[in-house]
Amino acid sequence: MLPIPPLMLTTGPVPAYPEVLAALGSPVLYDYHPAFQIFYADVTEKLRQALRCDAAPVIMQGEAILGIEAAAGALISKNDVVLNLVSGAYGKRFAIWASRYGKEVIELAVPYDDVIDPQAIREVLRKRPDISVMALCHHDTPSGTLNPLGEIGAITAEHGAYLIVDAVSSFGGMNVHPQEAHADIFITSPSKCLGSTPGLSLIAMSDRAWAKIETNPDAPVNSFLSLLAWKDASEPGKPFPVTPSIGEIYALNAALDRYVEEGPENVWARHALTAAITRKGLFELGLPLWPKEEAFCSPTATVFKVPENISDVTLRDRLLHDHGILVSLGRGETAGKVLRVGHMGASAQPDFARQFIAALSGILSEPFSAD
Amino acid sequence: MLPIPPLMLTTGPVPAYPEVLAALGSPVLYDYHPAFQIFYADVTEKLRQALRCDAAPVIMQGEAILGIEAAAGALISKNDVVLNLVSGAYGKRFAIWASRYGKEVIELAVPYDDVIDPQAIREVLRKRPDISVMALCHHDTPSGTLNPLGEIGAITAEHGAYLIVDAVSSFGGMNVHPQEAHADIFITSPSKCLGSTPGLSLIAMSDRAWAKIETNPDAPVNSFLSLLAWKDASEPGKPFPVTPSIGEIYALNAALDRYVEEGPENVWARHALTAAITRKGLFELGLPLWPKEEAFCSPTATVFKVPENISDVTLRDRLLHDHGILVSLGRGETAGKVLRVGHMGASAQPDFARQFIAALSGILSEPFSAD
Amino acid sequence: MLPIPPLMLTTGPVPAYPEVLAALGSPVLYDYHPAFQIFYADVTEKLRQALRCDAAPVIMQGEAILGIEAAAGALISKNDVVLNLVSGAYGKRFAIWASRYGKEVIELAVPYDDVIDPQAIREVLRKRPDISVMALCHHDTPSGTLNPLGEIGAITAEHGAYLIVDAVSSFGGMNVHPQEAHADIFITSPSKCLGSTPGLSLIAMSDRAWAKIETNPDAPVNSFLSLLAWKDASEPGKPFPVTPSIGEIYALNAALDRYVEEGPENVWARHALTAAITRKGLFELGLPLWPKEEAFCSPTATVFKVPENISDVTLRDRLLHDHGILVSLGRGETAGKVLRVGHMGASAQPDFARQFIAALSGILSEPFSAD
Amino acid sequence: MLPIPPLMLTTGPVPAYPEVLAALGSPVLYDYHPAFQIFYADVTEKLRQALRCDAAPVIMQGEAILGIEAAAGALISKNDVVLNLVSGAYGKRFAIWASRYGKEVIELAVPYDDVIDPQAIREVLRKRPDISVMALCHHDTPSGTLNPLGEIGAITAEHGAYLIVDAVSSFGGMNVHPQEAHADIFITSPSKCLGSTPGLSLIAMSDRAWAKIETNPDAPVNSFLSLLAWKDASEPGKPFPVTPSIGEIYALNAALDRYVEEGPENVWARHALTAAITRKGLFELGLPLWPKEEAFCSPTATVFKVPENISDVTLRDRLLHDHGILVSLGRGETAGKVLRVGHMGASAQPDFARQFIAALSGILSEPFSAD
Repeated sequence: MLPIPPLMLTTGPVPAYPEVLAALGSPVLYDYHPAFQIFYADVTEKLRQALRCDAAPVIMQGEAILGIEAAAGALISKNDVVLNLVSGAYGKRFAIWASRYGKEVIELAVPYDDVIDPQAIREVLRKRPDISVMALCHHDTPSGTLNPLGEIGAITAEHGAYLIVDAVSSFGGMNVHPQEAHADIFITSPSKCLGSTPGLSLIAMSDRAWAKIETNPDAPVNSFLSLLAWKDASEPGKPFPVTPSIGEIYALNAALDRYVEEGPENVWARHALTAAITRKGLFELGLPLWPKEEAFCSPTATVFKVPENISDVTLRDRLLHDHGILVSLGRGETAGKVLRVGHMGASAQPDFARQFIAALSGILSEPFSAD
Repeated sequence: MLPIPPLMLTTGPVPAYPEVLAALGSPVLYDYHPAFQIFYADVTEKLRQALRCDAAPVIMQGEAILGIEAAAGALISKNDVVLNLVSGAYGKRFAIWASRYGKEVIELAVPYDDVIDPQAIREVLRKRPDISVMALCHHDTPSGTLNPLGEIGAITAEHGAYLIVDAVSSFGGMNVHPQEAHADIFITSPSKCLGSTPGLSLIAMSDRAWAKIETNPDAPVNSFLSLLAWKDASEPGKPFPVTPSIGEIYALNAALDRYVEEGPENVWARHALTAAITRKGLFELGLPLWPKEEAFCSPTATVFKVPENISDVTLRDRLLHDHGILVSLGRGETAGKVLRVGHMGASAQPDFARQFIAALSGILSEPFSAD
Repeated sequence: MLPIPPLMLTTGPVPAYPEVLAALGSPVLYDYHPAFQIFYADVTEKLRQALRCDAAPVIMQGEAILGIEAAAGALISKNDVVLNLVSGAYGKRFAIWASRYGKEVIELAVPYDDVIDPQAIREVLRKRPDISVMALCHHDTPSGTLNPLGEIGAITAEHGAYLIVDAVSSFGGMNVHPQEAHADIFITSPSKCLGSTPGLSLIAMSDRAWAKIETNPDAPVNSFLSLLAWKDASEPGKPFPVTPSIGEIYALNAALDRYVEEGPENVWARHALTAAITRKGLFELGLPLWPKEEAFCSPTATVFKVPENISDVTLRDRLLHDHGILVSLGRGETAGKVLRVGHMGASAQPDFARQFIAALSGILSEPFSAD
Repeated sequence: MLPIPPLMLTTGPVPAYPEVLAALGSPVLYDYHPAFQIFYADVTEKLRQALRCDAAPVIMQGEAILGIEAAAGALISKNDVVLNLVSGAYGKRFAIWASRYGKEVIELAVPYDDVIDPQAIREVLRKRPDISVMALCHHDTPSGTLNPLGEIGAITAEHGAYLIVDAVSSFGGMNVHPQEAHADIFITSPSKCLGSTPGLSLIAMSDRAWAKIETNPDAPVNSFLSLLAWKDASEPGKPFPVTPSIGEIYALNAALDRYVEEGPENVWARHALTAAITRKGLFELGLPLWPKEEAFCSPTATVFKVPENISDVTLRDRLLHDHGILVSLGRGETAGKVLRVGHMGASAQPDFARQFIAALSGILSEPFSAD
């Protein structure tokens, strides 16, 4: 028997929109069927418009971490010095791939409750003018912090480096787009703020990123990891490098349609309002945010410290069992210290924020023994 | 608007069963939700029973080619001499990965209308006792030929080598299972004979395969390609290496339920009968099979030569436009010479074989000019 | 296990559009939930626009025959003389309800391969000026004939009678709308040319129809049959007379969206072209249409006479088993004499017409013994 | 855009099980397709087994109120004296149909917080031995009270009267079945405790009910209301009186499968436990039940009095907006005085009861001004 879901205010996967769930089960089409190829091209074009970029984006057939690893492999060559900007666990993780593919990885790190200071980047670049690639996790979900992508992108562009941005849990929930951020590769997920399902990587590409990749002798080929293999793959008549996940493409199409129908600006405002209500409620309950400053918080997730007299797991379990609300535990540095509440796609509803705060208030107002 | 599918007698993706399409859109669950983890473990157990193997199989989150590449990377070390058995395009392709990960690749090839002769394997092994890994594509879909896996497995076991089997388009449509075939890694797809959707790799593992992988210093880690990362990942409480494709798991569950409900033996018989009707019809129309002998044909696809006075594309297009039946073109060596008709999962219906033959008969009975 | 459908060129139910099937399974909402009430009102408004009428239409919660019976019961009082226009089995059937509710029923009938002659109506009305209600089946599906609703509506309006139109299998597939046809009650189905599912009656109402119903002491109340109970029921805040079929409402919404997206004029043209190809093919095969003149044929179904040397059931079965195409048998007068091919909604595809003709051609070109 | 549902603890429609939503969108099949007719017969047989009765039940194609009205019309003739047992609004409503079709209606009523006393029935029957039909609403949902059907059925059988039972919101959630209750017509709904969707009436019939109906000259024929038309309609090869709601039949099939898979006894225990937790919580909060005695409560709904300092609408709205839980208002006699919490099918989850009580507790613990 299939499980009945609670109210999922997790940091992902999050509940898909009803339209998305509905679309998933549309009849499977052969990927060489002209009708499917036209459909796939249409979805790619809708995605391009949502990303507000010029070049056709790429849809890789695995969840977003595939796209991030593939981006590193494709763009970073044995000659590249990579500046990895680290303000959380996901930013940190990128070093694995940067060092696998590059010559050297320089890390600019801040504590995980803080965000990257653009000025610090300028200083590193001054010392190391040979930095050729920079990598940033826009919203580091384990911390709920949002890095200043606009300024960082401008600095990168000025320096002439390539910029890889992990926008997995920010794009679609706020006003961020690859081109205006000077991102060369910008990876996002359908299953966060777009309200679709995991299973795909959505990747915006700059022309110069393609140019670099095409001349990178170390870029993976003949591999599931090959980003290069997907160049122009959405053009009807071209074979797909691997069989696409047909249902996930239908789902993405429905999510993009809903994004347009609601209006991107309205979607972003809904995310921001949900986050604001959540934070106001936490403030009133006396529960501190994990990020050092509220201004560092992402509109797409709120990470707060659990009180001392209750464990994160107990509080998570009580929210789930007594109030039917599922939130995420911390991860890495934040593990054991915080709970994380997603405001992403279908879960970014102001009423859900109120319900979460009411539930939390109820739990905290009762006496309970230490775990 | 979503396209309306024709009767898809392709070699994959094939039409999913109605139950599978229905299940796809079930509510997304957070992968850390205990209910989802139990569900995932249940699906893995159902898959194990379908595969009739002892160890828990692995479900990797990308279509089956991911599983094949991952198997090569995990099992084959820099010390391994690989015997790659080649009777078609997919078998040939494995050399890419075998040579990327291994010390040396020895190829035993036959023409693509033929199948591997077990005796020839014995001879190669006699000359090269250092062969430590063997790889076989069971049903090479571009040719529609089926290699004698039973005998090959026995020889491999006797020699002591590890055996990797690509059973992507055979498992579920005939009586083939990893353990009795002495396969150490056996990769199949949900979207062929099981009648589910692409987007997952289903991988049966032997205990000794896991043991070798765990001591292989070159096995990919921290990668979407890492098979090792999935060891024990289906046990509740363990984190998934990457977020699973939730909907595809629901779909696989429905496909496995249907497989059991219909009865595996009945499913295989249905595939065999569909293939037999197709071949009888082709014989009566005077259209020769691509495989040199009918005994070499897989029960899950029929590949036949197009007549001289019509091109493969024209014949394919007329089947589609005038009869609503979509079949696959050839690929690699068979491109331009054949059409390929899948009998897989929901498309393995004796009536569909009759309909295909009737359509073909109609087209061929009309006069037409050369293309 | 769920059955796998053939290509359904039936006269209804017909295949639903993929969007419609997808929408059906959206989460059930409580009918008193404000969100559902707003949604229901929106769907009603979309339906009003599709019907191109002024008053809010009514959605009754049972297949279209409920709407027809309910219309008769609501509008026809014990004082009414009803002129029932009969050119086929469905028109004939209306007399059952007209005589149950009215004072007298006058029948103007033509042979079932013919259509109503407006001039004949004028003559009846001259003789019987007390006729107060007229009833017409626009497209009598068992015969495939289409009555001249435009002229008939004008005559009815001129006479001052009320007009009930069964447009179940014409609306959505051609340029016909209640208001310009002077119809007072105009009943259609979601499961024919709109490409949705059976289970609802869609009913356009004129203001004067409502006025008459409200003063009709015999109009059913406290009954599933009560049309009156549905007046204004789509306004948010009003209780529904009976619990709506939630899923069918979602499905209708998706069908109306697709109708608008494709464009009504394009939808009608697609129906017309499909019918034209079918008829041209039948002509070339020497198979006569059932309607006396081709001009009488509906663009939404083609009814043709089966050849003498084969029975209707045998031909139907061969189309189904050998070609995967399901058509409808005759009904009433046409039973045993004809086959009926629907061109409705998702089945109104020019390619499907070609496929049907190719299949028929194949069957008829083979020798076969009489049944 | 489709609305996102709250946690629906309403008294119906209630949330459908995921399997049911999934099944709804399966491909539409022509109702004359043999495969559909076999499927329909299978579903009817599954329903018969779930109802634990001998005769094939009837599935009418409209929500359960259609079945109740149809039952009255079919069984009650102009010669029948009907004893209508009234303990709530739904029981009362039956008098409308009983008096429309019968000779005389005798009402045995109790206050709406009470249940029928079998002894009182005996007394009425003693005085009026001419009573030939009795009608009972088993669970009168507006009151949440459950009548003692077992005893009432035995008395009816002893007297020799026919018994019509409205078990719409009890069957599937507790141990109640038509035959052991001596019910001649027993109507239930798929959209309550079975966890499917509204849109169908499920009707168990006794052989003697059919015999009476077949000889009742006043039983509706040629009508959507005709129960008689459905006799034997589920046998393959028979035409359906009206086109079935294909999707609703798929949904019912999935609901029946889940009912069997979970096990009826387990399903009933789940309903009972959910109700018990709800009532214990209300007791601890000092909120009195509407039924005079807790023993009168149905395990499928809990009706409780709202405190004096808050209105029912305000409390309902706060539960919805602040806690995401939707319950039902009162109806008729209970309107304005109570809230009603359904424990039906997918909503009968012990955790949901806890969540509801926690939410209620939170609201009531806060100070608020009178509305």
